[in-house]
Amino acid sequence: MHVKTTGTIHGVGLGPGDVDLMTVRAHRLISAAQHVAFFRKAGRAGRARKTVEGMLPEGVIEFPMEYPVTTEIPVDDPDYNAVLSEFYATCTTHLRSLAEGGDDVVVLCEGDPFFYGSFMHLYTRLKDIVPVQVVPAITGMSAAWTASGQPITWGDDVLSVLMATLPEADLVRHMAAGDALVVMKIGRNIDKVRRALRATGKYDAAWLVEYASMEGQTVQKLSEAEGRITPYFSIVLVHGNGRRP
Amino acid sequence: MHVKTTGTIHGVGLGPGDVDLMTVRAHRLISAAQHVAFFRKAGRAGRARKTVEGMLPEGVIEFPMEYPVTTEIPVDDPDYNAVLSEFYATCTTHLRSLAEGGDDVVVLCEGDPFFYGSFMHLYTRLKDIVPVQVVPAITGMSAAWTASGQPITWGDDVLSVLMATLPEADLVRHMAAGDALVVMKIGRNIDKVRRALRATGKYDAAWLVEYASMEGQTVQKLSEAEGRITPYFSIVLVHGNGRRP
Repeated sequence: MHVKTTGTIHGVGLGPGDVDLMTVRAHRLISAAQHVAFFRKAGRAGRARKTVEGMLPEGVIEFPMEYPVTTEIPVDDPDYNAVLSEFYATCTTHLRSLAEGGDDVVVLCEGDPFFYGSFMHLYTRLKDIVPVQVVPAITGMSAAWTASGQPITWGDDVLSVLMATLPEADLVRHMAAGDALVVMKIGRNIDKVRRALRATGKYDAAWLVEYASMEGQTVQKLSEAEGRITPYFSIVLVHGNGRRP
Repeated sequence: MHVKTTGTIHGVGLGPGDVDLMTVRAHRLISAAQHVAFFRKAGRAGRARKTVEGMLPEGVIEFPMEYPVTTEIPVDDPDYNAVLSEFYATCTTHLRSLAEGGDDVVVLCEGDPFFYGSFMHLYTRLKDIVPVQVVPAITGMSAAWTASGQPITWGDDVLSVLMATLPEADLVRHMAAGDALVVMKIGRNIDKVRRALRATGKYDAAWLVEYASMEGQTVQKLSEAEGRITPYFSIVLVHGNGRRP
């Protein structure tokens, strides 16, 4: 008699993009994957999938999960939630059926899965039904401050991580309170971020890092990047200046 | 004629402690090191050095850098700065001489070197004199939120990273402002952290993670760990509850 064991869903953090900065565990799981699943925009190769190009074993089965919307519907529109919720449910159903059939699945996650990651939406839906394991990874912000060539925090510095999608007044309030700052999801919000940094006297100390650890990485003072079109995944940093001997 | 090239000082992040969560790059540099340097308390093996046990190549030359003080002098005492400053200068002199002699050195760094790391004190003293390369790593906080089994941040959540060594009033102010919280350097400051969390209504939502990703890892509600003696490197988390479909 053959008894099938339930497979495991592995949410594997790929880190900031450089495969050399992937963990040993991620490398091993990806190189031996039966199934890989990954999010992407419809019609695109997908950044997570591109990162592992050349690492996947012969015969791996791929499950691209294509977002039904990205920016067509505003995030505060109830339709946005409804459409995405249905999408995550469909992905979950498929992953669950693979695991219940006894197969392991590697879900490729850009960055660190539990830090503003998309995998969390699958995780919360799967974790009480089938075994789910999460492999942490280097965050994009860590690659950004490393690329900047300056430590982000010293001594008792407070680090605030802010999404540029926040209302301007919230950005100002948090920027004023923190010592070190990381601002993510920049893209079209760059002018709002500039205004908030100026309002808190931190504009001249801010750095803009694009494509940290990836091909095309750039590091420059934000004040020297006026008028620049910045990608969504660029990061703005203000380094802390805490206690140091 | 033989021309010596200056060697490189590599500040290599080891990550949270589990060698399987080390990056591929860190693994390669450590396994091929000519020299390894690492901080430790006098009379101790040193946690960084213990992490790489079994990974170092035959014939590697070790340079333990032993802290002249740890908790004997308060950090706000001018003597503390003077003693540590001299210590870092001595370490720097040795590392510099190795690099100028043409040798590469791997400095073993717990966690992520540029995130509240000790290596930063060497980095700022060396970076304009000899080549220095930094390899980022998974932070201890990332291992902690992964161990907690819950995503730390969603949507537009603000993440605040706070040192428990801060004055209580500062902790309260920042805890009240943030959505998701990470509190590090707990140890003897645990009661202050508890009071500040209570004052901001976040005590019941807080988790205590000890030795994340290491042997002896524990994860529990902070409210269920009353009276527990917590190590300095334990981490308190409050998870964000931002937008999710």
